[in-house]
Parts: sequence; structure tokens; C-alpha cells
Amino acid sequence: MSSHETRIRVRYAETDQMGVVYYSNYLVCMEVGRVEYCKARGFRYRDMELEDGVFLAVAEANCRYSYPARFDEEIIIRTWVEAASTRMVVFRYEMRLAENGRKVATGETKHVFLGRDMKPCRLPDKYKPNFGIR
Amino acid sequence: MSSHETRIRVRYAETDQMGVVYYSNYLVCMEVGRVEYCKARGFRYRDMELEDGVFLAVAEANCRYSYPARFDEEIIIRTWVEAASTRMVVFRYEMRLAENGRKVATGETKHVFLGRDMKPCRLPDKYKPNFGIR
Amino acid sequence: MSSHETRIRVRYAETDQMGVVYYSNYLVCMEVGRVEYCKARGFRYRDMELEDGVFLAVAEANCRYSYPARFDEEIIIRTWVEAASTRMVVFRYEMRLAENGRKVATGETKHVFLGRDMKPCRLPDKYKPNFGIR
Amino acid sequence: MSSHETRIRVRYAETDQMGVVYYSNYLVCMEVGRVEYCKARGFRYRDMELEDGVFLAVAEANCRYSYPARFDEEIIIRTWVEAASTRMVVFRYEMRLAENGRKVATGETKHVFLGRDMKPCRLPDKYKPNFGIR
Repeated sequence: MSSHETRIRVRYAETDQMGVVYYSNYLVCMEVGRVEYCKARGFRYRDMELEDGVFLAVAEANCRYSYPARFDEEIIIRTWVEAASTRMVVFRYEMRLAENGRKVATGETKHVFLGRDMKPCRLPDKYKPNFGIR
Repeated sequence: MSSHETRIRVRYAETDQMGVVYYSNYLVCMEVGRVEYCKARGFRYRDMELEDGVFLAVAEANCRYSYPARFDEEIIIRTWVEAASTRMVVFRYEMRLAENGRKVATGETKHVFLGRDMKPCRLPDKYKPNFGIR
Repeated sequence: MSSHETRIRVRYAETDQMGVVYYSNYLVCMEVGRVEYCKARGFRYRDMELEDGVFLAVAEANCRYSYPARFDEEIIIRTWVEAASTRMVVFRYEMRLAENGRKVATGETKHVFLGRDMKPCRLPDKYKPNFGIR
Repeated sequence: MSSHETRIRVRYAETDQMGVVYYSNYLVCMEVGRVEYCKARGFRYRDMELEDGVFLAVAEANCRYSYPARFDEEIIIRTWVEAASTRMVVFRYEMRLAENGRKVATGETKHVFLGRDMKPCRLPDKYKPNFGIR
């Protein structure tokens, strides 16, 4: 499946005293990429939680930092599904400065599907196409 | 009722590119002061939510910034109840640097009690003494 | 001077276990409103810091919470300058849900101008029109 | 070199609407573990930045999530140096609930040393013993 791009602008709140985006905030960027990816694939993550009681619990996350983003810079987050089954999904992310295309960071998050009881569950059939599962 | 003191140490994550604690993080300090105040008064805010379904929804917050706190400095948060009824409670906070007593900020938060339906409710009788209500 | 409107979408990261936006995050919304207000008035807050060494230090902030915003909701932040002199500026903010116009919160921040030495300074003449100062 | 343990208590601010600690906040836990590790080894990260102009820029971070931590739970963060040279250092972290020892998460961060010019530099000799470098 193809990737999806979304943009965010770095907030002052997200910088630290080194004058750059604090390292944990790139995981928040990834969340934004993930949520917007879902919308572009035709469903809202919010509804999946509310209506179907399916939660995407993070099992693993990693980030490689290439170049520091700074306050008020715009970041383009490219997101795609690297792997998916009815049990779990792996998202990948590439973050670049909008101004010059410079790579800021790349990352990956692995999620398992949980039901309302916070135990692992199978992804309902209706969501399979959204994650490219046959 | 008397006040309660608790201490936190400024995290790198809480600084911004000005080299000081970002302004919204003082509201998180106040949360820590509030939670520890409750413990010192004999109950856990966590249990009030879980066991009795009573939530403290913030209706108003304000903060006056006197002097910037910096990374790795220890802050002493003094917390007290300024006013309370069965409908609402007002907390006040004074934050000082542990090293030299310099005042960093003062603040106030006003909360209303909500039930599990997220509608205003009366504080259960058993909690009245904790907030100094007769 | 007229107000400026900007929009943000609530992130999962900004919610808390009550299922709504955590109270300190509205101060981050205000920052976004403030930064975009400045751009709409013809200057970048980033450049004011970098090129002219003028910083907007927060002296006071307050927020009144009317209705809880939730994950993935869009918030319209209306920002305006309530008062300004060569020493300080007061911004006001009104935050509403984009979907139905419901008021979420209102707030105010008071700032003093600081120089690179982190001491109070006068706003350089060239910025006066941006804040509506004659 | 041996590991160091430090403790933090989960803040309401750190939870999300799933009722557990939001995933990026474990990277903040790691920061706290790292800073306290340095103190236990005889130096303050703050002084290394201020006095010697040496910064620890994050090159890579990852986290494996085992069990969700919740509001007001105490987490024990065990931190150690997995590898170090005059160019870079790798920290590892293990986070457990204080109450029952249950493993919450494990993580790793890789850092390169930067000088005041934000370019890679060699760790000054005086810090070598602190990182176990001969």
C-alpha cells in the first residue's frame, strides 16, 4: 500500500534547551502521521476505539535521529504500513523538513490490537482492507 | 488547613529553547502538588476516581511567573486548599527553588466535582474532612 | 487590532485518562495561536528571537475551561492583542470546536520583552506596528 | 560498570485516554534515568553542558513496551552504560513497577558527543572514567 504525507509545524513547547525538538516528541509526530494515515485509508482511529472497541497498543517503537528540527519549521511526515496481520501492524515513518527536504528522522512502531478488556484481539474483518490485509 | 510541600526536579524534557522551564509545565507541577496534597490528607486521588467515580475537573487555572526554573533544579511546591465546598475546591500553589528559596511561580486552580457521567456532582460525605469541609 | 484564527487538531498525546485534553495543553494551544497571530501581522516570532534578540517571557497566564475537547477534534483558536506597550503585551485567546462552534476555553497571557541578557528591554521600534503600538 | 536505579511516579499529565502512560513518555523516563545515572557516577549532565560545552545528542532510541504503567504508580528505572567510546555512548534502561516488580518497558538510547558548535566531538579525558572508558 502507498504511503501518506501529513505536515506539522514545530511548537516552542516541543523544543528543549539545546534549541531543537526534544527527542520524545518525534514519537508524537509519528502518532500524527499514523492517525492521518488511517483517515486517508478511509477510517478514523477515534471511531475504531469508540465504535468497535479496538485499540492499537504500542508494543515497540524506535527512532533514528538524522538532523535536528527547530522551532516553527514545518515537518513532512510520510507514513506507511510496513507489515500487518489480524493481530498486529507495523507502521514506518520518514520525517523531512518541508523547506529543503532534509531528512530529520525515521521511525517504526509496532502495535497489537486490543479489545475493550485490554487483551489482544483479532482485527475485525471490516478493517482488514484499511491495513492491506487480504 | 495547613499546606503540604512536595519536591520535583526539572527534566530536560520540560525546558524550551529559551533554556528555562516551558510555561505550561508549571501546571503539571501544580498537578503533582495537588496529588501529593491529597495523599498527605489521607486519600489518593486515584482511588477517588476509581472507587467513587468522583473526578476533579479543572474549571480555571492561572499562574504568575516570577523567576525561571532551569534543568535539574529542584522545585519545592507548597500546596493548600484556599476554598472548598461540596461542589468545588480551589487549590493554591507556591513554587520555590530548593537551593535558595527563590520564588519561581505561584498559581491557583479551581475544580468542580464530576461524577462518572461527567456531570457536576456533590462531593461524597466521606471526603469532606479531607478538604476541610464541615 | 483585529483577531487572527488558526486551527489545530487534538493529538492522542494531549489527552489524559479522563478522556479529554489535559489542562496544561491549552497553554500550548495558546502558544500556537500567538505564533500564528504574529505571522499574520507580518513577522515571525522565531526571527524576533534570532535576529533581534527579543524574547517574549510569560509573566502571567490563565485559562478558563468551558467544555472538554477530545482526541481528533479540531479546535479554532482566535487570538488578539488585548493591550501592548514597549514593555509588555497581553494576548487573549478563545478556543472553540470547529465542528459546532462550542466554546472550549478562553485564556490570557501577559508577556514582558526580554533582551539576550534575559533582562527586561523595550520593544524595538520596528515591531511597534505589529503590536498596534503607536 | 554497574547499573543505577531511580524512581519516578506517574503523573496524570503522562496518561492518555487509554488510561495508561502515553508511549512517548517512556523516553522521558529514560532521560530521568540517564541524568540520575550520571550523578551517581560523579558528574552532573548539566555541568557537562554548561562548563565543558559537551552535549549528548540522541542518535537513536528504542523502547519495547511490556505492560502499561498507570497514574500514580511508582516506576523503578534501572540504567546502565551498554557501550561507550570517546565518540558515543549507549545507555540501556529497564523500567519496572515498584509495587510488584512487573516489567513495564525496556529501552536503549545511543548518543553522540557534540561540542558547542553542535558538531561531533571527542569526550574530554576527564569524563572517560564516568562512562567506563579507559
